[in-house]
Amino acid sequence: MAKINSNYQKLQAGYLFPEIGRRVRAFAAANPEAKIIRLGIGDVVLPLPEPIVQAIKDASDEMGARESFRGYGPEQGYDFLLSAIADHYKSQGAAVEADEVFVSDGSKCDTANIQEIFGLDNVIAVTDPVYPVYVDTNVMAGRTGEAKDGRYGKLVYLPTTAENGFEPALPTVKADIVYLCSPNNPTGALMSRASLEKWVKYAKENEAILLYDAAYEAFIQEPGQVHSIFEIPGAREVAIEFRSLSKTAGFTGVRCAYTVVPKDLKARNDQGELVGVHGLWLRRQTTKFNGVSYPIQKAAEAVFSPAGKKAVADNIAYYMENARIIREGLAAAGLTVYGGVNAPYIWLKTPAGLGSWDLFDKLLNEAHVVGTPGAGFGTCGEGYFRLSAFGIRENVVEAVARITKIL
Amino acid sequence: MAKINSNYQKLQAGYLFPEIGRRVRAFAAANPEAKIIRLGIGDVVLPLPEPIVQAIKDASDEMGARESFRGYGPEQGYDFLLSAIADHYKSQGAAVEADEVFVSDGSKCDTANIQEIFGLDNVIAVTDPVYPVYVDTNVMAGRTGEAKDGRYGKLVYLPTTAENGFEPALPTVKADIVYLCSPNNPTGALMSRASLEKWVKYAKENEAILLYDAAYEAFIQEPGQVHSIFEIPGAREVAIEFRSLSKTAGFTGVRCAYTVVPKDLKARNDQGELVGVHGLWLRRQTTKFNGVSYPIQKAAEAVFSPAGKKAVADNIAYYMENARIIREGLAAAGLTVYGGVNAPYIWLKTPAGLGSWDLFDKLLNEAHVVGTPGAGFGTCGEGYFRLSAFGIRENVVEAVARITKIL
Repeated sequence: MAKINSNYQKLQAGYLFPEIGRRVRAFAAANPEAKIIRLGIGDVVLPLPEPIVQAIKDASDEMGARESFRGYGPEQGYDFLLSAIADHYKSQGAAVEADEVFVSDGSKCDTANIQEIFGLDNVIAVTDPVYPVYVDTNVMAGRTGEAKDGRYGKLVYLPTTAENGFEPALPTVKADIVYLCSPNNPTGALMSRASLEKWVKYAKENEAILLYDAAYEAFIQEPGQVHSIFEIPGAREVAIEFRSLSKTAGFTGVRCAYTVVPKDLKARNDQGELVGVHGLWLRRQTTKFNGVSYPIQKAAEAVFSPAGKKAVADNIAYYMENARIIREGLAAAGLTVYGGVNAPYIWLKTPAGLGSWDLFDKLLNEAHVVGTPGAGFGTCGEGYFRLSAFGIRENVVEAVARITKIL
Repeated sequence: MAKINSNYQKLQAGYLFPEIGRRVRAFAAANPEAKIIRLGIGDVVLPLPEPIVQAIKDASDEMGARESFRGYGPEQGYDFLLSAIADHYKSQGAAVEADEVFVSDGSKCDTANIQEIFGLDNVIAVTDPVYPVYVDTNVMAGRTGEAKDGRYGKLVYLPTTAENGFEPALPTVKADIVYLCSPNNPTGALMSRASLEKWVKYAKENEAILLYDAAYEAFIQEPGQVHSIFEIPGAREVAIEFRSLSKTAGFTGVRCAYTVVPKDLKARNDQGELVGVHGLWLRRQTTKFNGVSYPIQKAAEAVFSPAGKKAVADNIAYYMENARIIREGLAAAGLTVYGGVNAPYIWLKTPAGLGSWDLFDKLLNEAHVVGTPGAGFGTCGEGYFRLSAFGIRENVVEAVARITKIL
């Protein structure tokens, strides 16, 4: 008798974005004349830069000729891309070797899959609010108890709110694996160097592992801030880092990301012996994954070329100008806003004690603007609201005008 | 203290193909003048057909223009591709709806990931020999005991050898989940309609689920044979089917596949209630996967266009002519061969009682031909050797001449 993985039944109803989609569709159907502006899901809108498009087309031509056709590539990515990524890390002051880089089809996949190489008895810590994938994949694997009041049993939640300056405090119970995200989705906050040093120290002292999601590092604007956890001394012994080209280079529909598992990282097996984590991830990827499409890897390589870097920087500057417009526009109207300086997300304190979903419905119905309710990211997100800077400029300006008119 | 998933340490050393690669590299280094012919890993060699290359290029141009740019797509694939796949199924006499199709980046990934939605206490049955991914992913998840004499505890092995005409017999112990592959990798055997009817009946009677890998269905040459398990009455209640464009359309480096989870398929939860499996896989994919690259989905759509179908059929005919040359050439030399009629693999009985790896070394050293030792696919593969029809014609002809000269 085949049995399902019953852990799936612990999952709380629906992923956040499908619920948003449902409400937006219902509103649009009832109000066909409304011009809806979407600053919700955080999907990029600017087209792929020309050098990247050209790289895909050239690679496709290669695939169409017998002498240059390529079949299976290495699961962890082609050397040309691994080297380009390692060089990029070195230019940021982080010691990462090419054979510590694993290219994949997305950071969602990597941050979802990484827990598979760790035992089911690890204590997992997440910030609250949090990117839902970290939590849901641990629920599905069976590392949590039942859900109650929006939180799962056994998980350690680290509140990150205005009260603590959006800096998660060290756990008061011992955590084995800690998910951190900086620049943060959804709060837009950036972890300071001092904070990261504190976390690396915690991990060393507790033999914990930090899963560091740096998907938005390219949006950091302030000089001197930390782009990679591997800039922090000792991090190579305690951390895995995830990065993505999705937002960085407009790859949400193209699909390419990368993960760094340093060879210095170790964890214990059931006998208490130290085992290299790099080899486990290599085994996981070679067994359950077959590499990223060759034309897409060539597109990713182009992101790191001089022309690609320039084009990508221009797009990021465009989005960060949007972020400034939202942040300053809302603040000037007397609203309390966070983020948007080193991240493409603005984290708005809901006014007048409105609930997150109340504000969602109000903005949708009265301003025809779609955002993301903070409560969708966790209990501590209640009373907040995420606005994304990924929009066409005139829509962003219009959205700010509409929001400030009604709030 | 972070702990690894200790199940990984049960895995037997190295995946098969890395070991082959190691031996081939060593030989090539010692014999730089040798012209090595590779009929081992089963990677395609013909270039991508023109309509498919053009589809990728057109889609890349779309991505380079603001008005046609696409960001995140649906995790399970775009409607245009889901519909094309459902139509293809219908043309083969299999009732599959578009919303039962899940597009992915490979059948290796899908056949590896599918076990995640099932409980850890299911009894798993696999054929022997078998595609290693089915086994290794269950080892990693913890559904097996320790390895002994090349077999894992708790797994149910179903021998498929010349003695039973390469048709696996029904398990003598109750199995909950059964992996079947037809046309078979590595034996090249095709399951008959009667055999599939027997398996569907077994699954119904035992509430078992069949995981049916049809990655090579496009290579079936004989009319009237079964291409999809969903041609079998009742299969929609007991089976999941995997298909791939890797070998079908030369996509090993392009990456696109699809899996069908019928809405009629159910399994039990811990309370013994029946739960729809389709919803579980949808949740798994939406949480741990982010869809296939848009230009690659357009390439896949082109495979199902009239021009794409014609080009793909021409390539398959080329490979199957290779298969005929290998099969008939070896048979004429007095060797015993199986497969190669409805599959691109020839399964050679090793002559003179040679072990699989002995024959591997002999062919590499004396004929400079690379194949795959049957023992690499399981205990019952010992005494067999896999040759792939994926080669350039003159190399295939040359390989047969060299092999028959020394065997």
